Amino acid sequence: MKLKARILHLDAGGKWIVVLNTDDAEELGVRSLGRIKIKKNKQESTAIVNTTSRMVPKGYVGIYDEVQSCLRLQEEDEVDVEISSPPNSLSHIKTRLKGRKLTRPEIDEIIKDIVNGELSEVEITAFVTSLHYFALDIDEATSLSLAMVETGKSLKLDKKLIVDKHSIGGVPGDKTTLIVVPIVAACGLTIPKSSSRAITSAAGTADRAEVFMPVNLEISEMKRVIHKTNGCIVWGGALQLAPADDIFVQVEYPLSIDPLLLPSIISKKKAVGSKYVVIDMPTGAEMKVKTISEAQLLAQDFIELGKRLDMTIECAVTYAEQPIGHAIGPALEAKEALENLMNLKLDRDLIDKATDIAGMLLEMTGRSNGQALAMESLRSGKAEKKLREIIGEQGGDPKIKPDEIPVGTHSFDLIAEDSGVVLWIHNSRLVDTARRAGSPKDRGAGILLHKKVGERVSRGEKLFTMYAEKAGKLEDACSMLNEESPVIVGHQMEMTLSHIKEMKLPRERFVLER
Amino acid sequence: MKLKARILHLDAGGKWIVVLNTDDAEELGVRSLGRIKIKKNKQESTAIVNTTSRMVPKGYVGIYDEVQSCLRLQEEDEVDVEISSPPNSLSHIKTRLKGRKLTRPEIDEIIKDIVNGELSEVEITAFVTSLHYFALDIDEATSLSLAMVETGKSLKLDKKLIVDKHSIGGVPGDKTTLIVVPIVAACGLTIPKSSSRAITSAAGTADRAEVFMPVNLEISEMKRVIHKTNGCIVWGGALQLAPADDIFVQVEYPLSIDPLLLPSIISKKKAVGSKYVVIDMPTGAEMKVKTISEAQLLAQDFIELGKRLDMTIECAVTYAEQPIGHAIGPALEAKEALENLMNLKLDRDLIDKATDIAGMLLEMTGRSNGQALAMESLRSGKAEKKLREIIGEQGGDPKIKPDEIPVGTHSFDLIAEDSGVVLWIHNSRLVDTARRAGSPKDRGAGILLHKKVGERVSRGEKLFTMYAEKAGKLEDACSMLNEESPVIVGHQMEMTLSHIKEMKLPRERFVLER
Repeated sequence: MKLKARILHLDAGGKWIVVLNTDDAEELGVRSLGRIKIKKNKQESTAIVNTTSRMVPKGYVGIYDEVQSCLRLQEEDEVDVEISSPPNSLSHIKTRLKGRKLTRPEIDEIIKDIVNGELSEVEITAFVTSLHYFALDIDEATSLSLAMVETGKSLKLDKKLIVDKHSIGGVPGDKTTLIVVPIVAACGLTIPKSSSRAITSAAGTADRAEVFMPVNLEISEMKRVIHKTNGCIVWGGALQLAPADDIFVQVEYPLSIDPLLLPSIISKKKAVGSKYVVIDMPTGAEMKVKTISEAQLLAQDFIELGKRLDMTIECAVTYAEQPIGHAIGPALEAKEALENLMNLKLDRDLIDKATDIAGMLLEMTGRSNGQALAMESLRSGKAEKKLREIIGEQGGDPKIKPDEIPVGTHSFDLIAEDSGVVLWIHNSRLVDTARRAGSPKDRGAGILLHKKVGERVSRGEKLFTMYAEKAGKLEDACSMLNEESPVIVGHQMEMTLSHIKEMKLPRERFVLER
Repeated sequence: MKLKARILHLDAGGKWIVVLNTDDAEELGVRSLGRIKIKKNKQESTAIVNTTSRMVPKGYVGIYDEVQSCLRLQEEDEVDVEISSPPNSLSHIKTRLKGRKLTRPEIDEIIKDIVNGELSEVEITAFVTSLHYFALDIDEATSLSLAMVETGKSLKLDKKLIVDKHSIGGVPGDKTTLIVVPIVAACGLTIPKSSSRAITSAAGTADRAEVFMPVNLEISEMKRVIHKTNGCIVWGGALQLAPADDIFVQVEYPLSIDPLLLPSIISKKKAVGSKYVVIDMPTGAEMKVKTISEAQLLAQDFIELGKRLDMTIECAVTYAEQPIGHAIGPALEAKEALENLMNLKLDRDLIDKATDIAGMLLEMTGRSNGQALAMESLRSGKAEKKLREIIGEQGGDPKIKPDEIPVGTHSFDLIAEDSGVVLWIHNSRLVDTARRAGSPKDRGAGILLHKKVGERVSRGEKLFTMYAEKAGKLEDACSMLNEESPVIVGHQMEMTLSHIKEMKLPRERFVLER
């Protein structure tokens, strides 16, 4: 069928989509989300069909940017359109829908087509939900990891001891990476750390690091920084290490499912060439992993997947029933990390966790007494010096002082109404409150805890201070506190945690951080 | 956040969607496919967010028609936008994703939100795939049927003996309905027959009936026709009996899954008030139902679901290893049906099936010797007279003669290359060929079989004639015949059906007809 191009001047988010008038679609025998082949001169491309009765008139085909730039189409250009069969990858997805495991070539085809925009949102969703029902086995996880690496960019370093760490996320205030990276880099290991921005949390590692320095580096810049300093802390999103994963997240997030956890994490570590990796699994009531035995099962999978990919993986199951350190929110957390590196402040849980993980990496690469080595690197100021080198190489101010980090000028103190002991800190309420105050977008917004679980509190004492960059957001966040306090103070361990009277669906917290 | 409206002059296919610039979305803390509340004056609406870095500039919100007409927005109008939590129905979908069955109120909420455009394609796909993995139980099927009826229009008839028939589809040339409806209406039963157009086949009943008369009737017109004639044959799509189903089909079709088969069919029968229903289950190698025992299991579900909804349902398991009658394609089939009703031609399989099903309906409503009664109605010319009444009331020519029905002027005869017996007719190849020739969009395109399974053929005899309205389409269809013939002639029963040498994924046929 001959149709004229109607250039829409819209992008379809990387997907290959054209819009047909319903009449033309019927004539062609194609339905919405079916596929057509579109030809101009000798150029040819396959695209997914959307149909409309209004947006595009009969005789025309609406062209999104992706198809337009491939076929170099102009308004009113004549094109030849015919029905096309769906790609093979769709057959594989249908196979997976029936519960059959997929082979390596099948997974390769699926991932390639997803990255190239050749599968529709419905088809990608079906694939992701199929992995949710019939969980990935280790062969599939291996294939997916490799396919995701091969469809992305990668970093080649001429080093042997390349280490890495990754947290599966969920615990607020976790600025561990800002301390682990300089420690291990100062000890001579190479750590090409790519990290994520917050999706559901108050701050991601990339958000925290950005308080010190630019993090949107390209692979070549990342390579230069590592070459000079042995380490870096950059945002993974700019690197395109596993572009398929960014597409999966768009489906996983609204559905609160995370079936691709393993390949998603491991593919990015593989892509930067990491050989020795510690996976941090914060474990607790509000975390992705709720019990130690759950963590053990997941750890086995990580370790086995690592073996398949020629990586040594160890897992740290970490306590996560309250925030790490006292600060929550990008600027407050960056400041707290710097103060600890400078030995100006000591957050025992933070330092314990950071030196444990750094110690594991040091021992995995042949040192003994890893934790002690890590602590020495910290106490001696070598780690601080290393962070400042990295800050300088990434384009930040290597001389930055903690007091120069700006925090929100609007603040509010939550005051204890009674004396007692802090019995419980609701991580998720704390995160929601910090986000309402502006975190992570407003870097200076956040919460600074003055009391943590088990500490004594007198009536009138401050439990925490909340900071915001905008008065309106502070007000919003305060109004949340009136509903439910994130910090519970009591006189003794009170055994009834909650009294449920009527059917009310709890909003389960979903942690998605990559 | 205050934003200015940028009217897009596009419709989002019934969904409530707005487009935010990525920066504003980040500021609001909402991601693509998240939700916002949008307010103008006192009007307020919730919408699903798409994000863009180009289509809509910072400070603006792109408005599709659905939201625009609700809030009566003009270009540059200031609106207030804030983050909104997802609807409860999304929690129910997440529950179903975990395998838990849904309650009636939960299903009601999901269906209502789907019909109102409040759930995104990803969310609807997740719901449909969840029903595919953990199949509907009878309670859920009941709830879904009722919810689908309640969110659509319905027909109220002041009659007692309201009957209906429905085929789950798949067998080519099945013009049974065109014969059953006039037979039972002539016998005094009321049959408010709504039918579908072809989705994957060469002709749907609505396509066949449209050769005689308009079928895009509204409920009120349908009622008038039934009032006059006891019956009708209209297109269900114009009636909005179960609008949720049209939305489900958009997801089921690209994925070739059909988990909503039962509620989809039964809701539409319930909506027109049918009390006695025969479900035709064509059973055969290329059908949705492949064996008689499969058919029995499905029949049990239909019958039980009927009981729950106060309907009497019986099922006809019918032979479907070759087409019904000789004609395939809207005009050819309409012609064949009329010739049989006029006793000008006798297609034994067609008449046997039609009088059996009509007979079941007659016996379900209290008559004895249903099949004989049906045959008498046919032989006496009463059925023909009734069809002509219906044609007249629906706005067609009640005096139409078979020869006045135009078929494609371009034709091609497939000639037997050897003498022998017709051993096999490939239904799906036949359908693909007819569709390539132009069916169902070109009403006059199709295939007329001259030989059916078991008949003797001499070399040089015609196996079938193919018709097309356009020379190019005939040529296309002929080129398919060169690849693989849909009619297999042999000398004796040859036992090897296929010889498979290398891995090649067969394209499984998916039947979706409603």
